[in-house]
Amino acid sequence: MFMEKQQNQAIRINMGRLRADIERFAEIGRREDGGIYRMAFSPEDWEAREALVDALKQAELKGEMDDAGNVVGKMQVAPAGPGVIVGSHLDSVPAGGPLDGTLGVLSGLECLRRIHEAGVKTKRPVELIAFSDEEGRFGSMFGSRAIAGEINPDTLRTMVDLSGVSLTDAMTERGLEPFKALQARRNPDSVHAFIELHIEQGPILDRIGKSLGVVEAITGLFKWSIRLKGEADHAGTTPMPMRRDAFAGLAEFAGEIPRVLEEHGAGNSVATVGRVELRPGTANTVPSLAEFTLDVRDENAEVLAALADAFRTALSAIARRRGLMFEFDILSEVTPVRCDERIASAISEAARELGVEPHMMPSGAAHDAQIMARIAPPGMIFVPSVGGRSHSPAEWTHWEDIEVGANVLLQTILKLAQSD
Amino acid sequence: MFMEKQQNQAIRINMGRLRADIERFAEIGRREDGGIYRMAFSPEDWEAREALVDALKQAELKGEMDDAGNVVGKMQVAPAGPGVIVGSHLDSVPAGGPLDGTLGVLSGLECLRRIHEAGVKTKRPVELIAFSDEEGRFGSMFGSRAIAGEINPDTLRTMVDLSGVSLTDAMTERGLEPFKALQARRNPDSVHAFIELHIEQGPILDRIGKSLGVVEAITGLFKWSIRLKGEADHAGTTPMPMRRDAFAGLAEFAGEIPRVLEEHGAGNSVATVGRVELRPGTANTVPSLAEFTLDVRDENAEVLAALADAFRTALSAIARRRGLMFEFDILSEVTPVRCDERIASAISEAARELGVEPHMMPSGAAHDAQIMARIAPPGMIFVPSVGGRSHSPAEWTHWEDIEVGANVLLQTILKLAQSD
Repeated sequence: MFMEKQQNQAIRINMGRLRADIERFAEIGRREDGGIYRMAFSPEDWEAREALVDALKQAELKGEMDDAGNVVGKMQVAPAGPGVIVGSHLDSVPAGGPLDGTLGVLSGLECLRRIHEAGVKTKRPVELIAFSDEEGRFGSMFGSRAIAGEINPDTLRTMVDLSGVSLTDAMTERGLEPFKALQARRNPDSVHAFIELHIEQGPILDRIGKSLGVVEAITGLFKWSIRLKGEADHAGTTPMPMRRDAFAGLAEFAGEIPRVLEEHGAGNSVATVGRVELRPGTANTVPSLAEFTLDVRDENAEVLAALADAFRTALSAIARRRGLMFEFDILSEVTPVRCDERIASAISEAARELGVEPHMMPSGAAHDAQIMARIAPPGMIFVPSVGGRSHSPAEWTHWEDIEVGANVLLQTILKLAQSD
Repeated sequence: MFMEKQQNQAIRINMGRLRADIERFAEIGRREDGGIYRMAFSPEDWEAREALVDALKQAELKGEMDDAGNVVGKMQVAPAGPGVIVGSHLDSVPAGGPLDGTLGVLSGLECLRRIHEAGVKTKRPVELIAFSDEEGRFGSMFGSRAIAGEINPDTLRTMVDLSGVSLTDAMTERGLEPFKALQARRNPDSVHAFIELHIEQGPILDRIGKSLGVVEAITGLFKWSIRLKGEADHAGTTPMPMRRDAFAGLAEFAGEIPRVLEEHGAGNSVATVGRVELRPGTANTVPSLAEFTLDVRDENAEVLAALADAFRTALSAIARRRGLMFEFDILSEVTPVRCDERIASAISEAARELGVEPHMMPSGAAHDAQIMARIAPPGMIFVPSVGGRSHSPAEWTHWEDIEVGANVLLQTILKLAQSD
């Protein structure tokens, strides 16, 4: 054991090579606006996937695509038994940056290469997956859902993107047989752990000046579309007390968000009104309708349920007091996922061995790890996003933080793949 | 004098005839949705104007159109000197009702007919004007502005409607010579009084169960387009205290409207946020921009100025506290107008003589009387709007209230036209 530990600690990623990979992939799908767009199942997305397969093969690793469009990398010779999977995604949002998803994939590639080069014999198989369609051209996280067994023939048949292109057409165009995607499913018994390195996509690590975050939980969320209905009145002739102003109701509700979060939320709870439409929507008419979204997130399912109750109660009281009607549709609900404590400890330990004090934190964004949690204990490593920027060409992480993150990923993989 | 008063009081409008006129004009420009649309200078608007000229002529009165498209009705034989003008408008908003403007015009027509039929010899000339484009296809209140001398060659040249049609083309199409509109101006010395009967377009008279309102003042207003600018952040990954949420700033501002009105407004002050646009405007992004309108009205210019100061101060404090930028454009500013006390007294007296106790009130909406105030002492009579509805096919006033209003108008005209 002593020897083994010594050996593991000696392995470091090749930062020059990782940097070259990041720079190379940043040119795949680059647009004139400076951003990157690798829409899932687009030629650009496929170019990146094929480049990954090539890189795996050049490193004397196995590289192939599964039936759901996921790229899978493995050692040529691997032990039997449940494996350690490391992964993230290569597709991007429109005008995206170079690191969202891609950093996790290329760091994972670098880890596999180093393990192979160093001749480390792990007890468990180590595997890299670049999931397909994480960003949700067709719903969201299609590739990890396929692996977790969360798709069925009906979802395959009915999924259509915003332009009306069907998933089956998009897959067929890339040479996949759509219904074979059901075969991408992995048995939970076949996976020992899932670990994902990702940029934070938020401001916390950058603000507190830490190089590395250990994700304790991936927040769940509920997203409602709410309609408050009053009456359209002339803005000049209708005295204030005679109004049933839908927007005044919304403003009062938005003003109560901090109170509801303080009373019913936890420290990391967030709530956002991101979209608002008023009808009739003219300057000289009291709004009869305010339609808006409410996006609420927390890492604890019970806190989330309490927040949903409290927001409903607040809306209902405001509507009653102001003579408004209210109704809402649930746009989405995602259950929070707690990361595995043993994996989180392994990440923290790896960081400290590298001289880096990790920061424990939740992930406010959704990730493939959330889906993989259904078949494997999940873990996530965050590196800082400069200025909290993401989904933007301005998205960036300093090279030295990337190096820390990738080395922590490598050491964590080794710890998990070597332990019983 | 005793005889004269007896004679005046004996005259009443012919309600059957007025009702038939209202019903007839309600069919001009009627649309399939049940509403009426007589856009200024449209064929429908012109059909109504020509129907008015015909009705004047059939009643043995003079009826003609001036160079700004205003229809002017007079007695065939009239005394010299400054006259009493009664008037309103025939054009409508899209999907409008049958009474907005038209009630004042047709009631004025009926008054002139009755004065003529009864053979009353007034000391002053009495005149009816149906103003062109009150609703503002080209700016607003074009016809009364032309009469008040508030247009110039440049405004004529540059006015364009929302579809890009120029005023000059619209006028030419109706057979008018645009630049002749400058000749429609009246000399202030030529007008003794201006009086307008109009539906309230608000809920007050209907709620308190009064048949008649005497307008004491027509409110002024300022209308701003305000932009609060923050930063677009991920709704999941950005902790509440790290946000610069433009919508949260707007909600706080809207929440302060009642306080600002209480502290700096008067009893009738109103303020409305009628239009709101958020950017980027997606459910999962903290809004970086909230652009909205603020429409504030009061009948007192000093109160209006105090409200403008207070709203600016509130915006500025909110922006500073939340790390937002704010800027605003003035969309419009209208100075409030006090109605003439002698005319208001004449209206009240006329109402009481008819056994109706009038309600003193402001007009929250703008009217031609506001423009005519620049060349003549103005007075306005309001009749109730059922449910406060206007600018809607549901706009209505009970026939018995219309009868009261038209008779009060008739008696007020006679009082003003007979007095020194």
